[in-house]
Amino acid sequence: MKQTLSTLATVLAISLALPVQAQFAKPEDATKYRKASFNVMAAHFGRLGAMANGRAPYDAKAAVDNAEVVSVMAKLPWSAFVEGSDKGDTRAKPEIWKESAKFKDAADKMQAEMVKLNTAAKAGNIDALKVAFGPAAASCKACHDAFRKD
Amino acid sequence: MKQTLSTLATVLAISLALPVQAQFAKPEDATKYRKASFNVMAAHFGRLGAMANGRAPYDAKAAVDNAEVVSVMAKLPWSAFVEGSDKGDTRAKPEIWKESAKFKDAADKMQAEMVKLNTAAKAGNIDALKVAFGPAAASCKACHDAFRKD
Repeated sequence: MKQTLSTLATVLAISLALPVQAQFAKPEDATKYRKASFNVMAAHFGRLGAMANGRAPYDAKAAVDNAEVVSVMAKLPWSAFVEGSDKGDTRAKPEIWKESAKFKDAADKMQAEMVKLNTAAKAGNIDALKVAFGPAAASCKACHDAFRKD
Repeated sequence: MKQTLSTLATVLAISLALPVQAQFAKPEDATKYRKASFNVMAAHFGRLGAMANGRAPYDAKAAVDNAEVVSVMAKLPWSAFVEGSDKGDTRAKPEIWKESAKFKDAADKMQAEMVKLNTAAKAGNIDALKVAFGPAAASCKACHDAFRKD
């Protein structure tokens, strides 16, 4: 009985893991994808930052559009930190895989901040955007400091 | 009067164009961004294709999620075909800038097909997805054939 359950758990674990693994044919594809999603996120996040920091005029519609893209992109890179994608053209530190619970916390924190930023953008005033932007940017930096090579 | 209107038109054109140009510090940044957005779109579009073509099991929730990302990404690359970004690490053909009306039509067609694909995914059945996937894929190919180097 115990062995059957153990086998069942293994089969279940494999079948649950499969969709994520199968999303990328090769580890390099996963690396390229996560870098692409961070690139797109950074471009739109930067435009929000320019408004929040007064380097660009505040445009309520543009803020909503950019924050929407950011919050969609914020969900994407995580499934692409697959086994074997710690090598090659990447700045990912080994800690991502060694301290995966800590990495997940940082990723979750970032996503939560981006949800807040999205809500702030929808509020339609620059002050709400300014308040939300700082902690959002800090959540990016915290993860980069701990998990990204210089 | 005529000259004043002409000057006004020029000023208006510059100020309308500015936000788009200013979104990227350098043409290379624009190229990198548009390639990144196409990369993310292709990854999620490919997952819909795998379901539509029977290479992956149909998963209604995953179809909705993937189609949502695709339809957000489909809007993004176009503002990044800026002047001067026809060189360097890109497969963009000169026709993009020489036949810009034709390029815009192809881009609009693709976006319209992705909206239909998104609606089809929300219908929650594999048949709707299959019907929408073919024309969506054809709209990608049409633009690649005309505007992307091999």
